[in-house]
This record gives sequence, structure tokens and C-alpha cells, in this order.
Amino acid sequence: MLFSQFFAPTSKDIPADAKIASHILMLRSGMISQTASGIYCWLPLAVRVMEKITKIICEEQDRIGAQKVYFTTIQPADLWIESGRYDAYGKEMLRIKDRKEGDFLYSPTNEEQATDVFRKYVKSYRGMPVMLYQIHWKFRDEIRPRFGVMRGREFLMKDGYSFDINFDAAKETYQKIFRSYVRTFRRLGLTAVPVQADSGAIGGNMSHEFQVLAETGESTIYSDKRLFTASDEELMTTFAVTDEKYNPKECPIAESDLIVSKGIEVGHIFYFGQKYSKPMNAFVLNENGEKIYPEMGSYGIGVSRLIGAIIEASHDEHGIIWPEPVAPFDITILNLHTKNEKCVETARRIYDALSSSKEVLYDDRSITVGEKLADADLIGIPYQIIIGQKKIENGLVELKNRKTGEITEMSIEQVIARFM
Amino acid sequence: MLFSQFFAPTSKDIPADAKIASHILMLRSGMISQTASGIYCWLPLAVRVMEKITKIICEEQDRIGAQKVYFTTIQPADLWIESGRYDAYGKEMLRIKDRKEGDFLYSPTNEEQATDVFRKYVKSYRGMPVMLYQIHWKFRDEIRPRFGVMRGREFLMKDGYSFDINFDAAKETYQKIFRSYVRTFRRLGLTAVPVQADSGAIGGNMSHEFQVLAETGESTIYSDKRLFTASDEELMTTFAVTDEKYNPKECPIAESDLIVSKGIEVGHIFYFGQKYSKPMNAFVLNENGEKIYPEMGSYGIGVSRLIGAIIEASHDEHGIIWPEPVAPFDITILNLHTKNEKCVETARRIYDALSSSKEVLYDDRSITVGEKLADADLIGIPYQIIIGQKKIENGLVELKNRKTGEITEMSIEQVIARFM
Repeated sequence: MLFSQFFAPTSKDIPADAKIASHILMLRSGMISQTASGIYCWLPLAVRVMEKITKIICEEQDRIGAQKVYFTTIQPADLWIESGRYDAYGKEMLRIKDRKEGDFLYSPTNEEQATDVFRKYVKSYRGMPVMLYQIHWKFRDEIRPRFGVMRGREFLMKDGYSFDINFDAAKETYQKIFRSYVRTFRRLGLTAVPVQADSGAIGGNMSHEFQVLAETGESTIYSDKRLFTASDEELMTTFAVTDEKYNPKECPIAESDLIVSKGIEVGHIFYFGQKYSKPMNAFVLNENGEKIYPEMGSYGIGVSRLIGAIIEASHDEHGIIWPEPVAPFDITILNLHTKNEKCVETARRIYDALSSSKEVLYDDRSITVGEKLADADLIGIPYQIIIGQKKIENGLVELKNRKTGEITEMSIEQVIARFM
Repeated sequence: MLFSQFFAPTSKDIPADAKIASHILMLRSGMISQTASGIYCWLPLAVRVMEKITKIICEEQDRIGAQKVYFTTIQPADLWIESGRYDAYGKEMLRIKDRKEGDFLYSPTNEEQATDVFRKYVKSYRGMPVMLYQIHWKFRDEIRPRFGVMRGREFLMKDGYSFDINFDAAKETYQKIFRSYVRTFRRLGLTAVPVQADSGAIGGNMSHEFQVLAETGESTIYSDKRLFTASDEELMTTFAVTDEKYNPKECPIAESDLIVSKGIEVGHIFYFGQKYSKPMNAFVLNENGEKIYPEMGSYGIGVSRLIGAIIEASHDEHGIIWPEPVAPFDITILNLHTKNEKCVETARRIYDALSSSKEVLYDDRSITVGEKLADADLIGIPYQIIIGQKKIENGLVELKNRKTGEITEMSIEQVIARFM
């Protein structure tokens, strides 16, 4: 991709209303454009990151046999009246009347719709277990949208719903998804700590949050220090809670073993039994022809929030530092002197060589050297290949690692070979 | 994928309110589940088709330099008041009040938002041309939703917006997109006829619809018979209009050269000049520092409708016949006797061999032979590998071409080699 043809409107200005790094950096790097309070358009750089994340999530969902669907953004109120949540959900739910004065809402979550789809089609224990998921847009009418995409109103979320025949099977599903989430976040290049959680408005009695550690996090996490060296299997039972659940008098961990950190919630998994299946009369028949109400769970990852959380956890004073698995491009080539023939020829040669196997952003814009270097650090692509007129006379280019800041001089052949 | 673990709830029942083939077949094959009038959940079989289609569309958009974004589903009314369309759009627009009584709407289209993004960031002719597109959910509150996903209320659409510095550049962009659409529909396995169109509510003076020919189409198309043998370049100027624009007295084509057919609109491209850039004060400065209002166009493909249109154009009395590029799976393996060891072993062997390079649905369900064969024809995967206990004793399986109905006996090795 040539930067001159890529729509990434970068800016030096620090937006007045942006308070945290991810909000500032996403605006400055031209990733998002606000259209209304808590509602953002996602520009090409952000879309590329979003697609990297969704691809990894889908692969991990497929791996555990979850089935991809699209529920709808607009739901009839009836389903929520059936479950008993319509009045309870409060003003965060965007309530809508259609042209025939019918009551609808913009999905803040889809437990009811998942239960409705299940009860329509699954009539026997033989059709179970069922695990459905989607990656879809949601709306929650936050009273005070803030922190950019971290607490927006319109947001992209992966939400999954499971249906099991009994508690033991549901528990197994819960554990399978727990492990899948650990794996998913690891593949995204993140340390996400599983925290025992209150299950809040969705209800239930088995629940974990996944928290990305970052100083700007809204949650305070109290955890056993062994959490950070635990195996995947140990993670589920190692003590970690948020401040909402922390009680020093009841804490099973000695104070000296306790680590206090800040986190951003990026995932949340719940087991909630028959909370929806019973009131919505979603049942199957078991081997003896008896009615069984499935044991359910729901499992969410905040995809758009994750983009902000990754930036909170991985940036410096110059800009974003993308973890490689979710970076919008693998490599950026900076041609510092676009009027120098040798520089142009070299940049083009490296670009052509690497583009077949890597995603490369070639900054061919006619801007100052300073602007070009600053934009590259701002956008945060993991590797910068810097081509300047002095070095190139000796056949050399520079390779900069955005994360470590390390710069290595090498020949054109060497830099190509480095990424092939 | 094992069918026993795949959520595709097929049914023999013909739904009472479904009048056309695509609606009936999408319900019967478990592709969609209605949640409210004109609002459908998309189940895994449909999602697979949708993703095939969107992948091809994105590749073709990338090829012409269009940049992928996500505008928002919920927009502030302000933008539409600025463009003058807020009142004009009528009741098809879903109007929404948020918790602070602010006026919002669910995007039926995004010209205003695209113009808003453009004017925020592009200040100079040097930043042009710009072409932005998204594949996103829309809502149009149809007074009488019908024909399943063909005229639904919530639907998936590819919509693109172009900004050029003058008419000649805009015309070139229009022609580039015209050719890109011809190519896109061809890659989808479709014959989509470009028809000179009224530009309707979006306004403007250069416009083509792309119509998939199908007997159940809502449009009547009058076209020069040479259209069907025209080259891509000739397509744009060969006479074809819908009944709305057809006037026998002014028709430039001799009656004997005229073909009348039915079509389903699946794409629509518009050039509409400064219709939005002027009222929304979106301008750039040209080389002389003068204000220029960009010449714009918009370009749509109805992705969810396309799924219905493909079925309308490609089915028989037994079910769907997917064109290979958009089929949910490449191959289905039908094990007719799931208790016969030899059948199970053969099915598994073929499944394992083909799954590395093809998308294979292995029907391992314990249902009758008749049900299994009927479901395979209903779902319409292009190739069926049928394994029955009699043939397998001689080491033979059957390969059925869903489109032609042709059945060929071959050895296990031959059928594997056929798809490798």
C-alpha cells in the first residue's frame, strides 16, 4: 500500500477532549473519526487492526466448535419482555419505535435472541450442545461516553451463547471457553488476566473477566502474585478479583503475596444456568422424553474496546507500538527523500520484494523527513525500513524496531532477506 | 465440518408466508431465522455464503484502490438536516431518540457521513481522489417487508463513496467502478446485466443498476439483444433500461432486437456531482488556492439481497444450486449408512484427505438415506460424494454434480484425486 493513496489522516494536534493515550493516539493517527458522542467512524488503519483481531477470534471460536451467526442489531421488545429484562435494563438500552409504532431496541447483548433461535430449532438432547457466536455491532446508550472507543456507545463485540443439557456439561463448556479465551488473548499479543467476577446484570454464578493490564485501566485488580507465572490450567483457580469483589478481611491470600494492578476489561464469560431458558420456555426432550431446560452461558470480547486497550498497554510518548499479530501492517518503508532517484528505486525494490509475503505500507509522500519519521512512530507499525540519501550511497538502509527503538544498518539484500 | 455438529436446521415444511423460491429455500435449509417482519438472524450456512461474497467484493474494491472503513449504523440527524434529506427521506428512515432526547437515525445509506469524513480531513486537491467503502448493516423501514431477505428491513450492504476534483475525473472513477462491478459479479458466478437507471432519491445524472436475471425479479428489463454478447467495454453503452425508464416511442432499438426479461437489482452506481459536497460545504483548495467542491458518486451492492438473488437465479425443485465461488462448502460427503464400518471408514478417509484443501461438509448424521439425499440437494453444495454400503463393497463411491445432476461412479482414490 502506498501511503500517498492510503486514507490515514494523521495529525500533530492533541484533541482537547481526549484524556487517555488510546483516544489521543487513535485520533492523531487517523484511525477513528467521531460522528457523535461515543459514536465513531472507523478509518482504514483501524479497520485493518479490527480485521486482524476478528480473524484470530474466529479461528479460535471455530477451533472449539462454536458456530458463527449474525443475530440482528434491531430486535423486537417482545423477546426482552419474555425474559423479564425489558424494564430492568434501564436507559442504557436504545429503545426504538418503527413506522408501525412497534417496540424495538438496538441489541446491547443477545441472550434472548440466542435463546429464541435455539428454542425454534432444537427439540431434542441429541441436537446438543449448541454454541453460537457472532461478531457484530452493539449499542449501549452510556450516560457519559468517554475515553474514545473504550466506553463508546456503538461498538463491535464478539458474543457467544452456549446451551448444554446439564450442569456438568455446561461447566465443561465454560472451562473450554475459558481456556479458549486465554489462548485467544495470547495470540493477540496480550497479557489478559482472568479475574473472578461479579456477574452483574446478566446474572449467574460462575463468571470471569479478562483484564488487560494498563495504568489507565478503570478496574483495580487484587491478585495472587503466582497468577503471573501460572499455567493455563492453574489460571482459572488462582486468586484474582476486582475492587468490586475485594474484601481485605476475607482475602485468602497473604498481603505479601498480593499484587494490586490496574486493568481494562476486554472479555467476560458467564455461566447463568436456566436464567433465560426457563422464562422463555426453551426446552428439549431428554432420552426419557422429559422436558429439560438447557444450562446456558454467554461469552463476550469487546473487539473495538480491545483496540483501545492494546494501545493503552502498548505505546510510548511517540505513538502506538502494535503487537505484531494485530499490527495494521507488518512493515513500513520510509523513503526520506522522494526526489532522490536512488532512494525511490531502492524503496520500490524493497517494497516489491516484501509485498508478496508481508503487508507493507510504503510512505512515498512528499513531506519533511521529520514528519515522516514522526508519523511512522505515531502509527506504530512494528518495523520501519528507513531509506535516506546519505546511507544509500553506501548501499545501506536502516531497520528500526518500533518497540525497542533499536536501529540496525544493513544492505538492501539483508533487509529483504530479514523478512522473507 | 461434521454435519452432526453443524447448526443447519433443515426442514421439509414449506413456510406458509414464503412466496418465492429464495425465501422458501433459505428457511428450509436453515440459513435464516425470522426475528421480526423483515428482520432475520443469519445462521451458519448463510454466514459462510455471506463471507464468500464479502471476500470477493473486498478483493475487487482493494484492486481499484477503494479504502475500507466502517461508518456507523447510528448517525446524528444533524448531518441529514445539513444535506437537506432529513425530512425528504420519509418513513423508510428509522428515526431514533437517544436517552438525552437527541435526534438520531439508523443509516439507510451513508452519503452524508462519507462527506463529513471527507471534509474533516481532506483540505487540498493533493489528497484526492478519495474512495471509501464499507460492508455494513443498514436499516430501511419498508412499509411491507416481503420476499425474505430480498426486501428485508435490516440488511447487509456494500456502499462506496468517491470524491474527485472535477467532472472528468469523476467520470473516470465511475467507469472504473462500473468495470469493477462487472468483474465482481462475474467472480460471484453471476450474470448481472447493467441497466441505465433513474437515479431516484439519491439524485444525479449518471446511473446504472446491475440486475441478476431471474423470473421472480421485480424489475422488467428491456435490452438490446447484443447486451448478452457484448464485451465489458461495450456493456456500458449497450441499450438496457428497466420498465420505469422504457418508452416504446423513444426506444432506439428495433423491436426485433429487443429482449424483455425479469431482473433483481443487486447493485446500483450513481454519479451525482456536488449534490452533497455543496450543501455540506465540503471543499478543497486547488492549485490556485480556489475552493473546489468535489464531484461525488456512490456505489452499492446489496450483499444480503444478493444471497436471495443468487438462489432465485440458481435453484431447481429440489433446492439451491450454489455457484462454486459462493457455495458454503465445496463438497459434501454423504455417508448413507452410518452404522456400516466400511462406509464410516471410507467417508472419514475421503473427508480427511479433502479437508486440507477444500471446505467439506461431512454428513455423518444418523438419519434415513432419503432424508440425507434430500438435505444435500436442498442445501445445494456443488459436489456430493455419496457413500453407500452396496457400492463400497466393490470399492466404489458416487460423485454427484448438483447442477447437472450427473452421477459418476469412481474409486476412492479417483474421487480424492478429482479434488486435489
